[in-house]
Parts: sequence; C-alpha cells; structure tokens
Amino acid sequence: MTTTGKQIFSTLADGKLTVEVAETAFPDPTGNQVLVKLEAAPINPSDLAILTGAADLENAEYSPGKFVAAMPEPFNSAQKGRHGQRLPAGNEGAGTVVAAGESDSAQSLIGQRVACVPGAAYSQYCIADAAMCLPLGDLSSEEGASAFVNPMTALGFVETARMEGQGAIIHTAAASNLGQMLVRICQEDGIPLVNIVRKAGHVDLLSGLGAAHIVNSSDQDFMDQLREAIEATGAYLGFDPIGGGRMVDDCFKAMEQVAVKKMTEYSRYGSDQAKKMYIYGRLDFGPTILTPSYGFGWTLSGWLLTPFLQMAGMDTVMRMRQRVLDGLTSTFASAYKRKVTLEEMLTREAVLDYRAMKTGEKYLVTPHA
Amino acid sequence: MTTTGKQIFSTLADGKLTVEVAETAFPDPTGNQVLVKLEAAPINPSDLAILTGAADLENAEYSPGKFVAAMPEPFNSAQKGRHGQRLPAGNEGAGTVVAAGESDSAQSLIGQRVACVPGAAYSQYCIADAAMCLPLGDLSSEEGASAFVNPMTALGFVETARMEGQGAIIHTAAASNLGQMLVRICQEDGIPLVNIVRKAGHVDLLSGLGAAHIVNSSDQDFMDQLREAIEATGAYLGFDPIGGGRMVDDCFKAMEQVAVKKMTEYSRYGSDQAKKMYIYGRLDFGPTILTPSYGFGWTLSGWLLTPFLQMAGMDTVMRMRQRVLDGLTSTFASAYKRKVTLEEMLTREAVLDYRAMKTGEKYLVTPHA
Repeated sequence: MTTTGKQIFSTLADGKLTVEVAETAFPDPTGNQVLVKLEAAPINPSDLAILTGAADLENAEYSPGKFVAAMPEPFNSAQKGRHGQRLPAGNEGAGTVVAAGESDSAQSLIGQRVACVPGAAYSQYCIADAAMCLPLGDLSSEEGASAFVNPMTALGFVETARMEGQGAIIHTAAASNLGQMLVRICQEDGIPLVNIVRKAGHVDLLSGLGAAHIVNSSDQDFMDQLREAIEATGAYLGFDPIGGGRMVDDCFKAMEQVAVKKMTEYSRYGSDQAKKMYIYGRLDFGPTILTPSYGFGWTLSGWLLTPFLQMAGMDTVMRMRQRVLDGLTSTFASAYKRKVTLEEMLTREAVLDYRAMKTGEKYLVTPHA
Repeated sequence: MTTTGKQIFSTLADGKLTVEVAETAFPDPTGNQVLVKLEAAPINPSDLAILTGAADLENAEYSPGKFVAAMPEPFNSAQKGRHGQRLPAGNEGAGTVVAAGESDSAQSLIGQRVACVPGAAYSQYCIADAAMCLPLGDLSSEEGASAFVNPMTALGFVETARMEGQGAIIHTAAASNLGQMLVRICQEDGIPLVNIVRKAGHVDLLSGLGAAHIVNSSDQDFMDQLREAIEATGAYLGFDPIGGGRMVDDCFKAMEQVAVKKMTEYSRYGSDQAKKMYIYGRLDFGPTILTPSYGFGWTLSGWLLTPFLQMAGMDTVMRMRQRVLDGLTSTFASAYKRKVTLEEMLTREAVLDYRAMKTGEKYLVTPHA
C-alpha cells in the first residue's frame, strides 16, 4: 500500500538549475518515522539555497510545474557537491500523520496534526522523525507550519546571549518575520534589543510592536542612532542575516566607539570590551567587509540552528519547543502574503516575488489545496 | 636623587604625529616597582602603532632626534583617544635594575639584568613591574631584549590550540621572527604546522629550519598547496598577522574544501567542520574580505597577547615564561638587522626601513650606546 503524491525536486547539473514537481512514491515509515500528509509549508530564506540559490530566474524557462534556470559562476562550481543530485526542498511544514513506524512514540502520533522538519516539505507527503514532530492539538496546519525555523532561531539567539553572559542583543534586518518574533521574546524576557532596519516603514512596524530601540540604517545619522542604542542597552552581541557588505562592520565600530568613550586611558589596542557578531543568513551574497577600526577584541562567527541545538542539549531544546507551542498564535505567529500550490510555487511571477525576500511578504505552500 | 635620561615620546595632535627624544626625569620606584637602566629594546610590529601608525613618513620633516609627519584620515580621527597626549613607546626591553621599591620581590632584583615589559622601552630608563621582570642570569641584554612579545605570542598560539582541542595550526606570514619561533616550538611539541609565506626565499628559510609544510601564496597553485597541507595536517585553526585582504578568506575556503571532500552527503550549509582563524596583527591596514563560500561553521576573532595571558591564568603564564627563559638563545632567539640609538631610530633612513616590517630585518634600539 505505497503512498504516492507530488513533490518538488531541485537538480543542479551542467550549469542549469531544474526545479520541478514530480510524482513520487513515499516509502512506508519504519521505526521512529512517521508519514505526514503535508497541508502547509512556508518558504523561508533558508529554503532558497536549494530552491533557487543564485540562479538567473529572470531569464529562466518556465513551464507548468517546472523551471530551468542558468546558475552563474562562481555559484555553480561552489555547489559541486550537489551536481547531478535530485534534492528535495522545504525545511519545515505541518500536516496530519497518516502512517507510523513500529515505535511507541511514532504510533502515538497517528491521526494527529503535527509540525515537522523533514527537509522535504514542498511535497504532498513526507517521512519525518517522530522525535522532531510537534503535536499541534487544536491548531491548524497553517498556524503550525512555521513552528520550527524562525521560532527556534529567534529563541536560539536569546539562549546564545544567556550562555555567553550577555544581557542585550543587536538584531539587523530586524523587521523580518523572525525579527518580529525576537521583539516579542525579548519583551517577555526583559532583554533590551537594538533593532536595525532600513526603511521608515519598518521603524513604524516595530514601533507598533512596542520595540524600544529602533535604528534606521538609511538615516543620515545612522551611526549616531546606533551608538546611542548600544550605550542605552549595553548590547555587545549581535545577530545578522545579511552577511555581505558593511553592516557587521558598522555594528563592531559602534560598539567599540561606545566602549572607547568610557575608557580613562588610551590604548593602541582599542577597548577591552569583547564584541561579538553572528552571521546567520545571507540576504546579501557579497563579501563581508571588516575594517581595522575596532582593535582586536572582537569575534565574528557563523550561526546555524542545527549545530546550536545539538550544542544546547535536549533539555534546552525541549524547553524551547514547549515555549513555541504555547505561543504559536501569539509570540511566534507567522503571517503570509500569499498561499500557493506546488505548481503555482514554480511560476515566474511567484518565484521572482518570494526570491526577493521582502519583509512581511512570506509565502505559504499548500500542497493539497 | 632623581634619575634623568633620554626617552622617546609620540604625540598626535592637529593631524600631525610628532615623535621626539626628550630629557625626562624618572620617578623613584615604589612598592613592587623597579627602575631599569635599559640597554636593548626591539622594534616589533606592535610598537609601530604608537611610533608611526599610518603617518606619511615619506614626506615627514626630520630633524636630529625628531620627526613630524602628517597623519591621514581616517587614521587621525580613529585615534581621537590619544589626540594631544604625549605617549611613551616600546613594549619590551632588557637592562639592569638600578633601584627598587620596598617590596621583597622588587628589592631582590637590584643589580640584576632583567627583561621587562614597561610599554616605555625606547628610553634610557623605565619603571617596570617586578612581577613582570624576567631575571636573565648570564644572558646579555641583547639576548633578553625580545623575551616577551614574540616568544609569549608564539607560545600563546600553541596554548590556544591546546585549549581549543586543536592538534594542528596554520600560520600566515610564517617567515617572520615570530613565525620561526613557532616552527621550532611546534617541532619540539610535535604539532603539525602549516606555514604560509609569500616568497621563494621564505620557503628556503623555513625549509632550513626543518619546517615540513610550507605553502607559497605567490605560487600559481597556492590553493592546491594549501588544501594539501590542511589535508595532511588536519589544521582547522589558524593565526594571521596580516589582517587586511583575502588571506583569512583563503584559509577558510581551503579548510572547507578539504572538509567537504570528506562528506558523504551534500549539505546546503556546508560541512560541519568547525573552522577558526585569529587575526593577531595588521601588516595590511586594508579591510578583511570574507566571501560566502564556507558555510556557517567558521569563527574569526582578534587575538591579543595581554587578554590571552589574563585568560590563561598565572600558572600557565609562569610555565610559558620559564620555557622562554630556558630557550632564549635557541628556540626563542631573535636576530637583528641593525642596532640604533634613540636618535638614530628617528632618522628618515631608519624609520622608512623598520616601518616596512620586512621579514628578517628587525631593529634593536640601544639607548645607552
């Protein structure tokens, strides 16, 4: 009694990225696996690495349920490891468990609506690990679709700050879905948060959520605003989803300038205030530029959810998941601009729109609609 | 009975850097202080921050015992904290203790030759902390002059690697005086070391010391050489004194490419091999360029000796110092291109020469010669 259904696959071969809907047979779940009938899956920036990457989507060939796009260099060569492989896409989603492996925990989920993290959520069905499934109770699949990536990342920033003994946080590109969650988490936990946005409209958006420290990088006096906010909050730890360009550099500079102002004696090595920034995304694929203007007391690091969760340990992860579940329609609620089927998701209009990753314009895929 | 003598001071004011020899009265040492009659002090790259910085030394005005040079922007503004201040220079040196404060440890040093770290070593006398003085026994001041900065930094790299559970090290600009020490330390300790140099002559130099892994960044196949050396050594931790440009990026790239080759499954996030680089100097004042080509499993950090020693703790520091003392004429020996008096040190010819920081061309200042 094999289950079949439609699924999206992404293949990079001979400099061309082919993404298409294909009929697939799903294996029966075994052990601790469950088979989920997926009803909703968000398109997050992190999904675009597999789905579109740096492909030339403007000039791609679009046909029903399929597009073929050129992948420019150096991005084509940089992904040598996936050449020729047919990869599933979609980190997370929600749906109903329709079959389960022999384990008790898998069996107990049969018939329940769950959020899951299969890495293959742009599909009508997926195999998921029961241990990673979050039973949604009365919540809808749409409400539970984004229960993992953004909520756990935003909570992960707060956990990271605590582990490193930091009492305040800087967040760049702060008007994002994730950024709005972080505003609410930090309000609940009493953690001062410096929100860096790049548009007046985003200032209004976060003001509306009650954010206390909002800095607009498009303003002439951006650096003054940033220094003031750092001075007011004591934030020497930041998270940045942009990656390329000078935003990380600006944050380090402002941190150092605030710290130096408090020094009583000049040091050629700069302040002894430790400054730390994490890059957790790549909205800008350009190089990160670091200028020699803040001494040697700084650390820049990549931040990824999965290694963080492994490092944090099961107790912390379970506590974080429970908090997400409790706040899924409030603190961790996601809003969507548009719902698309698997086929609609691969049209030129949709691809060019969600690939732009505009603030507040998230897509939700509904594979059975 | 105040002691007087000549000392070099560096003052940045109104966009001009003035460095001059001045007659100074040295206070009597108190408590745990000693007064050292300085006989030898090296000019290390780290001394140049105070001594020359980014000043326009080509077009400076030179007069006996003095030069006045324009300090270009943004370097002038970046050093606002020192504007108008008359700063001493010279991190380390060696000489004879001629007076001491009341403490037993200070008194016990009277008449002894010591290495010290006064931060004011371009001087005929200095006040130093007895706890930081290293008694040199039969060694000369010239042999002991560089007993701190380079030896403790090189040993600090090895200690850092151990603390972080790393068994191999990459070092860039590896033909330096410090780099040669690191080669010898790693040989003694059996730690595989990847030496990156930029000239064929430096390859020969390090080969002569018995270095096993030498990579020339000027060679066409530099990245191939680097990958091979990383594969052979398992070095995913590196130390870089260049700072600006793409050397750190090249190291991260090569580390990641070696790690990805070992993966059995493609990951959009890159390998899960942690990669770490430390910038400990600024031979290049240009920006550090980091490309998005090695996932999120990397950390780049500044590394400075003083905070490292504070973090490492007194036991480790004492063990390191003893090792330096035991090997001061072998493992930790320094060679000098030229000896200069305080006045000779400020001539156009000398300034332009040591400011170039050429490999193997270190200067030694002899304030009483």
